[in-house]
Amino acid sequence: MKAQATLEELAALFGGKVEGDGSLPIRGIASLEEAGEGEITFLAESKNRRRLEKTRASAAIVPANLPSFPKPVIRTPNPYLAYAKVQAFFQQKPLAPRGVDSRAFIGGGVKIGRDVSIYPFVYVGEGCEIGDRAVLHPGVYLGESVQVGEGSLLYPNVVVMDRCVVGKRVILHPGTVIGSDGFAFARDGAKFVKIPQVGIVVIEDDVEIGANCTVDRASMGKTWIKRGIKTDNLVQIGHNVIVGEDTVIVAQVGIAGSTEIGNRVALGGQVGVVGHIKIGDGAMIGAQAGVGQDVAPGQILSGSPAFPHREWLRAQAAFQKLPEMKRTLAELEKRIKALEERITEEKE
Amino acid sequence: MKAQATLEELAALFGGKVEGDGSLPIRGIASLEEAGEGEITFLAESKNRRRLEKTRASAAIVPANLPSFPKPVIRTPNPYLAYAKVQAFFQQKPLAPRGVDSRAFIGGGVKIGRDVSIYPFVYVGEGCEIGDRAVLHPGVYLGESVQVGEGSLLYPNVVVMDRCVVGKRVILHPGTVIGSDGFAFARDGAKFVKIPQVGIVVIEDDVEIGANCTVDRASMGKTWIKRGIKTDNLVQIGHNVIVGEDTVIVAQVGIAGSTEIGNRVALGGQVGVVGHIKIGDGAMIGAQAGVGQDVAPGQILSGSPAFPHREWLRAQAAFQKLPEMKRTLAELEKRIKALEERITEEKE
Amino acid sequence: MKAQATLEELAALFGGKVEGDGSLPIRGIASLEEAGEGEITFLAESKNRRRLEKTRASAAIVPANLPSFPKPVIRTPNPYLAYAKVQAFFQQKPLAPRGVDSRAFIGGGVKIGRDVSIYPFVYVGEGCEIGDRAVLHPGVYLGESVQVGEGSLLYPNVVVMDRCVVGKRVILHPGTVIGSDGFAFARDGAKFVKIPQVGIVVIEDDVEIGANCTVDRASMGKTWIKRGIKTDNLVQIGHNVIVGEDTVIVAQVGIAGSTEIGNRVALGGQVGVVGHIKIGDGAMIGAQAGVGQDVAPGQILSGSPAFPHREWLRAQAAFQKLPEMKRTLAELEKRIKALEERITEEKE
Repeated sequence: MKAQATLEELAALFGGKVEGDGSLPIRGIASLEEAGEGEITFLAESKNRRRLEKTRASAAIVPANLPSFPKPVIRTPNPYLAYAKVQAFFQQKPLAPRGVDSRAFIGGGVKIGRDVSIYPFVYVGEGCEIGDRAVLHPGVYLGESVQVGEGSLLYPNVVVMDRCVVGKRVILHPGTVIGSDGFAFARDGAKFVKIPQVGIVVIEDDVEIGANCTVDRASMGKTWIKRGIKTDNLVQIGHNVIVGEDTVIVAQVGIAGSTEIGNRVALGGQVGVVGHIKIGDGAMIGAQAGVGQDVAPGQILSGSPAFPHREWLRAQAAFQKLPEMKRTLAELEKRIKALEERITEEKE
Repeated sequence: MKAQATLEELAALFGGKVEGDGSLPIRGIASLEEAGEGEITFLAESKNRRRLEKTRASAAIVPANLPSFPKPVIRTPNPYLAYAKVQAFFQQKPLAPRGVDSRAFIGGGVKIGRDVSIYPFVYVGEGCEIGDRAVLHPGVYLGESVQVGEGSLLYPNVVVMDRCVVGKRVILHPGTVIGSDGFAFARDGAKFVKIPQVGIVVIEDDVEIGANCTVDRASMGKTWIKRGIKTDNLVQIGHNVIVGEDTVIVAQVGIAGSTEIGNRVALGGQVGVVGHIKIGDGAMIGAQAGVGQDVAPGQILSGSPAFPHREWLRAQAAFQKLPEMKRTLAELEKRIKALEERITEEKE
Repeated sequence: MKAQATLEELAALFGGKVEGDGSLPIRGIASLEEAGEGEITFLAESKNRRRLEKTRASAAIVPANLPSFPKPVIRTPNPYLAYAKVQAFFQQKPLAPRGVDSRAFIGGGVKIGRDVSIYPFVYVGEGCEIGDRAVLHPGVYLGESVQVGEGSLLYPNVVVMDRCVVGKRVILHPGTVIGSDGFAFARDGAKFVKIPQVGIVVIEDDVEIGANCTVDRASMGKTWIKRGIKTDNLVQIGHNVIVGEDTVIVAQVGIAGSTEIGNRVALGGQVGVVGHIKIGDGAMIGAQAGVGQDVAPGQILSGSPAFPHREWLRAQAAFQKLPEMKRTLAELEKRIKALEERITEEKE
């Protein structure tokens, strides 16, 4: 059974301002097209106002500046954020911890907090510490001495190798691997000798990592995923990489070893970043770009290799005209030759 | 024990025309080089006829227009398709369902069809429905209320999250994740607030998805993988994406949220597609391309950003000559300057 | 309890030359900054000598040509290799096989060597052969008749499908899938018919494959990963690919079907290689390159499509100047036109 709330109660979740009957009971939130009687909907931007007019919802969350509307509304500068909070409210489930299933394996010396859910076929290695309310879904593997903070959610088949540290309220999506060996070999003639990877991975609080990602443990020291980072699926983060707070990493990005990424950086889909460089705070890297050297804070880059986005746009536009430029060049060469010959003739 | 068939019976599998002894018994199919006595082989294209002459196979599937050949043959316009059907015939195993292993976990209210195979260490959440003859290999996880259609094959460690729907005769290769959360956050100052992902993934009949792929659930509504789609490994499909029937997606492709891909589209390896665009029916996108805007039906694009393939080929050819063009340009500038000076001198 | 050794004993591990007290006891190796009393450190390159001066380590491994140093040192031409060997010495654990856990599933006719560790929730299919000292971590799946050589290490949730062969001392990182079906379909009008993939994967000795990689089984015959190959994470290797000895493949590379890669090749991160080509021994392919045709031995390529790296560097430099070139071209055209008019005027 899902939660129910009055319009006034919902507005309080995000500090919105109610217009109309604040005691109206609401039982869910849905899109403009799909919301029905008894539900609230939301309009992200005033320019799409027409779509709002047709909604069957009983109320709407709307931008602060929207003209008046016949149904009850909650005004807010950020309707999308309001949607996130209201949807989370309706989706919340009463805490129903399953405890430790008898078909899970729990190693010696493991400390387990209160109200956890440890499903069948979970493997928890010796000396692990699992915080209150943590959820370990089926097939999760924790190596020796792994720490998982309170409220963290490890989806099915997540692997966290020995000694790695996962903070509080972290979400690791299915199949993600934390703490596999970094890719490091010393040459011995034609052969390669493995460099033991004795470091760990530290994932700070409120991080969310997508499905089937890989985050390698450090050669020495730590690979460091700081507070609030969000990554999409199939992302690769190499050994000893540091990623700053609130950075966003889109799907299939690869970051090579020992690179340091600042706070609030955005890396677009399929971006590649070489090792041993720094990307400054607030930088934005366009999809499929290849970053080969340091990036100053706030820079916006595209291309492979990457350079400033605006210049890249112009260069790309010119690129598509290259065959034409080549023809023009050949033609100009002919005209110059003709001029040179005429002038020489005249002189003679 | 594998099957055996006469030449005539094999021809009937794909509507081929036998030349020679149709009662010849055949016990397997192999390549031109590896087939031996009692086996049949196949020649995909007439131009490789020489390789056929050396085969030790007792018979061959050949293109309809191949000149006469001394051994028994089956003629067909599409020998490769014939190979697929004949090989499938020889590879088929008698149905030997394992039933539900006692080491699997089956939640409450689960409905299980006939002749299924549910291996050890499979987790089936509450309220799931598993169709007849479905096979769930070890380590498969189904969340709550997942539906798996008849004859579908979920390889080891496949994860299907709550409420997702998998059609009939679907193949999901190992490690693939269906229904992980879409990548969606609302900004709240510098921080990100998670948008609950309340939609699902629907996979229609006869879809095959490669190993270690990820298909995100919709924010609201559904991510929709239509009938007959084939994807290779490590493919990422974002939330609310729609992929049309019989579309082919090669390895490591990424498709961002809410994009709609038509029927019979082909996406080459490592292609990236941005969110919220449409790719029309029958379009073909070359490997590593980056698609940033709508693509009309039937278009063939390459490059990042992508543009028509033929123009891209010419632009790429010119790109490799760019340093030379730059030198030519500098040289022409000098020659023009010289001309300008000569003309001015002459005037004086 | 970790191992301890004298300086002389450590030097013997890699053939280094001790200067100072060879009987000095050493209990570990760490970086220049982190090593303390009783530990040894290493200096990879003489140019970083300054950082060595501040170390608190009791001894150091140094390049052969480093000037004299006040603490005991071991000289060697390859300090990084020496580090790998010394670190491996200190990290080695006494062999403590766990045997076969009762919560693992072992199929009929399985042969298991001595001193293995088979963890809970491992599935070993019928007829598998597991060599001495092999380790199968939780969630590992071996299909029917899989061979795993002695001393090989399969990390959690690794999947090896039917009949594939894994050599000796192989390391497969978590979530990696060996032997999923190759991506092969025959067209039947608009639909695709699956080509049964009846081949296998052979992984030779001393191979290391990263986390969440995929290596497809051959259509017929074998996909062949030769001795000593190292791959990073999220790498895709298609059916019937052959990869030569001691080749290095960085993260997120994709290699399409039937391509043959030589020995000692290096493929940079996110490289894509089309099917049915050959890359010669010792070739190097830069990150994000797209290789569309044969590559001669020893070639160094970059770009998509790839061409010789030096030419690519020049073309890329010119690319960034393209808008300027375009302006120059337009300007020259004007100047030529002006010249043409002046000459024509003068003539008149």
